[in-house]
Parts: sequence; C-alpha cells; structure tokens
Amino acid sequence: MGGGQQYFTRSDRNLLKEFKKAGYTYADSLSKMERLRKLPALGLFAKDGLEHALGSKEPLRLSKMVNHSLKLLEGDAPFFLLVEASQIDWCGHANDIACAMAEMHDLHVSLGHIKAFVEKHPNTVFVMTADHSTGGLTLGANNEYIWRTTLIHGIKKTAAPLARALIAAKTGWEKTWQDNTGIALLNEERNALNSLVEKGQKNDDGVRTELEQTLLKAISRATATGWTTHGHTGEDVLVFATGKYTERFKGNLNNIDIASQLFSVLPQ
Amino acid sequence: MGGGQQYFTRSDRNLLKEFKKAGYTYADSLSKMERLRKLPALGLFAKDGLEHALGSKEPLRLSKMVNHSLKLLEGDAPFFLLVEASQIDWCGHANDIACAMAEMHDLHVSLGHIKAFVEKHPNTVFVMTADHSTGGLTLGANNEYIWRTTLIHGIKKTAAPLARALIAAKTGWEKTWQDNTGIALLNEERNALNSLVEKGQKNDDGVRTELEQTLLKAISRATATGWTTHGHTGEDVLVFATGKYTERFKGNLNNIDIASQLFSVLPQ
Repeated sequence: MGGGQQYFTRSDRNLLKEFKKAGYTYADSLSKMERLRKLPALGLFAKDGLEHALGSKEPLRLSKMVNHSLKLLEGDAPFFLLVEASQIDWCGHANDIACAMAEMHDLHVSLGHIKAFVEKHPNTVFVMTADHSTGGLTLGANNEYIWRTTLIHGIKKTAAPLARALIAAKTGWEKTWQDNTGIALLNEERNALNSLVEKGQKNDDGVRTELEQTLLKAISRATATGWTTHGHTGEDVLVFATGKYTERFKGNLNNIDIASQLFSVLPQ
Repeated sequence: MGGGQQYFTRSDRNLLKEFKKAGYTYADSLSKMERLRKLPALGLFAKDGLEHALGSKEPLRLSKMVNHSLKLLEGDAPFFLLVEASQIDWCGHANDIACAMAEMHDLHVSLGHIKAFVEKHPNTVFVMTADHSTGGLTLGANNEYIWRTTLIHGIKKTAAPLARALIAAKTGWEKTWQDNTGIALLNEERNALNSLVEKGQKNDDGVRTELEQTLLKAISRATATGWTTHGHTGEDVLVFATGKYTERFKGNLNNIDIASQLFSVLPQ
C-alpha cells in the first residue's frame, strides 16, 4: 500500500494488470482501502507520492495503512511487514519542520498500532530505524535554549501551499501568513516576503521556490529549529526494537547487520 | 584530578590547605601526577581549565588522568569514578570541529583504559552519556554528502591560537594558514581573513573574535561540518553501558533515571 500508480501502469509494462492476474485484490484510493479484505492485496492510493500529512484531509494515512495491513496479516502465517514513514525525509530535505512533525505524528500513531499488535502477538519482533538523518535537524538553534513546539503545532500548511496562498492573497498576504502560522515576523522577514509575494503576482513559478525558502527560514528562526543542509547527514541513527529477539538489535550495529539479524528471525 | 587551582586557593577560604590537612596527597602539575601513589589524592593541574588537547603538549591528559585514577582505585574497596570529557562541550560552543575531535580522541583513549579495567574487573559497571548536545553538530552540511575527516586531521590549532598566529604572520598569514590547516580558501574567505588580519595588526583584541569566527566558518565549510548554534540543543543523547548491570541502562531513560540506576548499583 502507498502511492505510485504511475510506476505500475507504464507504457512499457502494465504491472497493475500483472498483479491482478496473479490474484491480488486492488484498491486505488485510501477511501476504498477497507475493501481489501484478503491477501494478496495491492493498494495504490496516489499517482505518485501521497499528500503530505500537514494540511491533508487524511493526515493519518500511514497509520491507517499500517492498521489495515496488520489486520490483513493477523493470523497463523508468518509475515514480514515493511513500513516506511518516508515523507519525514522529504520534509527534512525541504527544511520544513511543521511538515516533518506532522509526518512524525502519523508515525507515532502507526507505532501505537504496531505496539498493540506486538503485545497481542508476543512471537513478533518489531524493529525501527532510519537509513540516515536528513536536513541536519537540531531542536534549538541560533543560541536559543528552547524549541517552540506550540508555534510548530500552530502551522497549518507545508511550504508549497503556503507560498501559493500568500501569492493568491496579494496585498492581504500578511493576514494569510498569520492565519496559517501564527508567527510574528521580523522586519527583514516581512520585507523579503512582501517583495517575493509581489513578484509572485507576475511570475508565480519562478519566484515560488525563493518564497518557500524564505518563509521556511522565518519558521525555523521563530521556532528555534536548526538545519545544516538540504541533503542527508552522517550521524549514527537510532535502532529501537520491541517484542521477541530484541537482544539481537542491541548496541552498535552496522546497517547491514540489521538486515542479517532480521533474516535470522524469519522462519526458514 | 583536573584543573581549577584558583577555585581551591581563594581569598575567602583555602580549600587546598583543608584537603591537605584532611590527609590528601597533592600534585600541582600533570608531570607530577605519578607522585600521587595512594588515596585520598588531589591533582590540580592548571589554574583554571586544562589546555585544549589540540595543539597541546599533553593532548592525552584526560586519558592519562583516567588511567592513573584507575590504578589508584584498583583493589577491593568499592568506588565511584566520575570522568568528564568536558572540553568537547567547549569546542562545540566555539563551533571548532578540529578542537572537538581532538577532545574526542582523548576520550576515545580514555575509554580504552576503562574498557580494559571493566574486562579485568567484571564486577564493575561503566556508563557513558552526555548531559546535552552542543553546537548542533552534523557530519555533512550545505548539501554535501561527505564529511572530510582527512582535512580535520590536518588542522593543528584551535581557533584562538590560530587567529593569533595569523595576526603575528602579518602579510605572510596565508602560508601560516596553509601550514596549520591545509585548507584551500574560497576567494571571499581569503578576502575576509585578509582584511581581519590587517585590522588585527592595529587592534588585536577587538578583531580576534571576528577573526576566529571567520576562520572557523571556513574550516566548517571546507570540512562539510554543520553547526546550528553556539549553545546547547535538545536532541536525545545516547547512553552506553558495559560490564555488570548494563540491563539497567537500556532503552529510553529520563536523565534522572540514570542517577537512580547508578545509585541502585552502589554498595549500601
């Protein structure tokens, strides 16, 4: 389950047809997910990626997919379920903290479903890790010993729709900013945004990226969120495990060790 | 053992005298540390803090103190040893990566001594953690998917002595820079440093801070080291444990839990 319809119905090959022929039940939108009542099943709920959680009508789409997957998998047959909370990475690349935290919330709810499943089925191991950090995120920045979570909770849009809304609001952009972020701007931020919104009236596409980056910098400054890159960083990532076999995921592990350990607990 | 002589011999109270009176043997320099042959012992090896490891004649002073402390403590009596690799934090506040890594190296050597001790005395628990992150350090920055460790190894001075050396070298500062860092400067970095070195001839103290920050920015840029603050940041820190009772330090712990768990393993 996830997005990616376009990668299944391609001009060179129709994988969707092949899946159906192989006996998979199929659903093409999250609202139809419940119709997937038995395995094997395939759910492709968007042409490409799913919408970001923040500002979406389905902010808990990952946790819904996880919950439904676990219901389908529950039973006597052994299984391996891979869940990727992938858009945390996308928001990290964008340096968009409100975006990232909405994805983290969907992951948090997903973990609740998984934890309940592992508690009910103690013969299960759950392992969570990351393949890297993205963005060089720090909680607190610019010599401020605080991270303003209340402000972050108040932000209603990710950068792209917020930039579009500011441009659409024209001279009323500052009210739109306030309604969507609740953040008091510094003078230089206000001037920069004002000039970009003005430019955006004439040449929307060309200015949008700069507008997005400028408004994200204001959000990071106001919330005391630190970023060092739009790429990945090399710090060690955490590994969490619960259920059976957790001792195999303890201590300092090479990334390939995690795969080896997972294979070691799969039924032969 | 450590620095801080001035906090012991104060105008209001002479703690050093009191320690001696209470039966402590005393050494006032690292070279005399070996003379501390029995407990209780007090070693105060600098007026305030010890020199940074980088550029020091005693870059392994922490590991030497740890090694000697373990020798003094080895025996049947139970003990609690607190080791603080404290200057990692100072280098983090300065955003000086070569400084921080030299401190990390001294800690690394210290850990070797501690690990050997715990292996020899399996009735010991060793716990390592941090009270916070400093500087918002990331390995990789500015969209570069690399961290240039070879460059960092080549840096011979922390910021303050490097700034003094550049000012002292006058128009020959760029050779001094090369000799001490091996880093190729960007044009704007060269121009900024040149102007600050020039100003530094006339007004050394006033310009030095700006010069230090400018040269550290060049070092961070060249090595792809990220920083988000000169203060502390709020990410979770790691907890490592080896020896006996390690299971008490597993999983997600509140900082105060670490103290409680340590007290739980101390003999009553």
